[in-house]
Amino acid sequence: MNIGLLGFGVVGRGVYEITGARADMQVTKVLCLEDISLPDAQAVKNFDEILNDDTIDTVVEAMGGLHPAYEFVRAALEAGKNVVTSNKALVCTFYDELLPLAERKGLKFRSTAAVGGGIGWLSELERARRVQKLTQVGGIMNGTCNYILDNMTRLGLNYDDVLKQAQKLGYAEANPSTDVDGIDTWHKVILSANIAFGISLDKQTVPVAGIRNIQAKDVENFKAHGLVCKLISTAKCLGDTYSAYVQPTLVKEGEPEAAVPMNYNLITFLGDTSERMSFFGQGAGRYPTAYNVVQDLVDVLAGKGFYAPYGTKAAADNSEKLTWYVRGNWTEEAAETWDGAVVTKPVSVTQMHAWLKENPDAFIAAIC
Amino acid sequence: MNIGLLGFGVVGRGVYEITGARADMQVTKVLCLEDISLPDAQAVKNFDEILNDDTIDTVVEAMGGLHPAYEFVRAALEAGKNVVTSNKALVCTFYDELLPLAERKGLKFRSTAAVGGGIGWLSELERARRVQKLTQVGGIMNGTCNYILDNMTRLGLNYDDVLKQAQKLGYAEANPSTDVDGIDTWHKVILSANIAFGISLDKQTVPVAGIRNIQAKDVENFKAHGLVCKLISTAKCLGDTYSAYVQPTLVKEGEPEAAVPMNYNLITFLGDTSERMSFFGQGAGRYPTAYNVVQDLVDVLAGKGFYAPYGTKAAADNSEKLTWYVRGNWTEEAAETWDGAVVTKPVSVTQMHAWLKENPDAFIAAIC
Repeated sequence: MNIGLLGFGVVGRGVYEITGARADMQVTKVLCLEDISLPDAQAVKNFDEILNDDTIDTVVEAMGGLHPAYEFVRAALEAGKNVVTSNKALVCTFYDELLPLAERKGLKFRSTAAVGGGIGWLSELERARRVQKLTQVGGIMNGTCNYILDNMTRLGLNYDDVLKQAQKLGYAEANPSTDVDGIDTWHKVILSANIAFGISLDKQTVPVAGIRNIQAKDVENFKAHGLVCKLISTAKCLGDTYSAYVQPTLVKEGEPEAAVPMNYNLITFLGDTSERMSFFGQGAGRYPTAYNVVQDLVDVLAGKGFYAPYGTKAAADNSEKLTWYVRGNWTEEAAETWDGAVVTKPVSVTQMHAWLKENPDAFIAAIC
Repeated sequence: MNIGLLGFGVVGRGVYEITGARADMQVTKVLCLEDISLPDAQAVKNFDEILNDDTIDTVVEAMGGLHPAYEFVRAALEAGKNVVTSNKALVCTFYDELLPLAERKGLKFRSTAAVGGGIGWLSELERARRVQKLTQVGGIMNGTCNYILDNMTRLGLNYDDVLKQAQKLGYAEANPSTDVDGIDTWHKVILSANIAFGISLDKQTVPVAGIRNIQAKDVENFKAHGLVCKLISTAKCLGDTYSAYVQPTLVKEGEPEAAVPMNYNLITFLGDTSERMSFFGQGAGRYPTAYNVVQDLVDVLAGKGFYAPYGTKAAADNSEKLTWYVRGNWTEEAAETWDGAVVTKPVSVTQMHAWLKENPDAFIAAIC
């Protein structure tokens, strides 16, 4: 297998290193805008040098971002090259274009590292689908949010202080919005649901609430009630309909989710025979992410394509009613008052996310 | 695929049900000593009726126990039939005979349900081996012990009372020795190490200590120090040597292992690129176990054999020094005293297990 590697950042370098030790695949060209010199591959600055190289059968996209990653991946597929990517935003955003294109061309398209980094999550969904119907997927899918929430919980720190520390240690970006506003988790749960249930979720019907507004006093409230806050994604198959959402969620101390430390992920599926299965590991990082990119390359060599056939479009129905912790201008009747905040009576996911849009300074968390 | 199913107990019935809904495989004969009548399969009381049936290409062993399971499985392989089993005692005990036999005959032999029940653990070790070197495997592999320890910890109950409750609820056998003395975990970690490291561990060099002697006052001691006791297996690849042992282990509250509730398992591998990966799920039960038996059957259909080639024999070297909680007649110098027990200075795993053999009424736990 001759590989054209797009990008030579954290993940790209890891892929280059791991494949360098293998006999069954080699990176022959690397697209990198900086001047680099590599012992075993040619560095190029123009994607066409990879696209028009007929000896390259597989493209690994490790650039991140939507553009030009999308244009490059689409062109690679159109030119008959297999594609492996770790880019969840790309696969989620252009699912309805890239999946049918890969299927039509009979090409292999895989993205295991896009969800859970080093966790073999999408590949395990693929395996599970062979034998059972999956009924639920989701969990803690973003290491940055977990790092922030874990440190706020363990050390009683403020959101801003932990975020700054996380940025200093490389656990959060300078602009942390994609992580703390839940967008990264939103991409991951939509992609997971598409594969688990064999559908294409209408992204606009999947609401997302992030952790940006959480305060130390919220965490104190949770502690006083034996609860721990995590950013949790949920997607369920409810017979012929589906629900899907991302939101801060209060889990009981002692539950597996509550014990997830630092920047780790804990992702779970429920199946009708396996019951609950959860996966704990490094959701990011050079080697864990590159590990799953190379796993995908091994699977491409073995003839494996995408994890599930491209499925029909489906809108999420989030009429499910939950009770919520709300700190903000909640004017409806409350079930309880917790020091400056309320616990609501049952309110649907749809209704609560609509209320949050009108009250963007509030903090909400579903109570498990 | 035509399947001869040996045994029609908890797991066997599950396999019969799940395969009954599939078009690619069917159970055509079931070996069962009781009188049963099945709509889609012939019940037989003599194994020869399966062995000599040339239309049966695959045997599923779901009887449990060593004999006659071993004789039947060996005969099936010798007769050219693929074998899938959930029997950890069988695969571990007769590893050096069954593995080479299956390899020599070019047959598929799989046992994913033997470790972790519904967790795709052995299959994930198989996947991990394709890309990285595994350096450690182990964890909480026995649901009965976890159920007992979890209830002692959460409710402050006595060992005997929790064991009786577990027996009543079906979480423990009438004779619980295989579980509480750690034998089941011992089989599982040896099998895991054999696959992860590509070796055949000398079982006699792998010491095991169980939980039979734990008392409510031990659990009180652990709580007072922020620790939780779990039965944990460990196998490490240390360059050219290996260590492997099973023992009660004290983990810090807040660690993922400490949060494993009820009869769940949490099994972990460390790899040189994936880093830590853990798997949480139902380690037993009809449908979770049958789920992985059927996964194996799908893999047999896809041409997959055992998870790793049969490897060279290796003895465990357990000279690693740990500190230990000991309640018993410990006469060596201690580092600390904890209400009726001691915390030792560093003592090797080999030495502590040897001491335990001389002091069979003592309770020991390694401190993580």
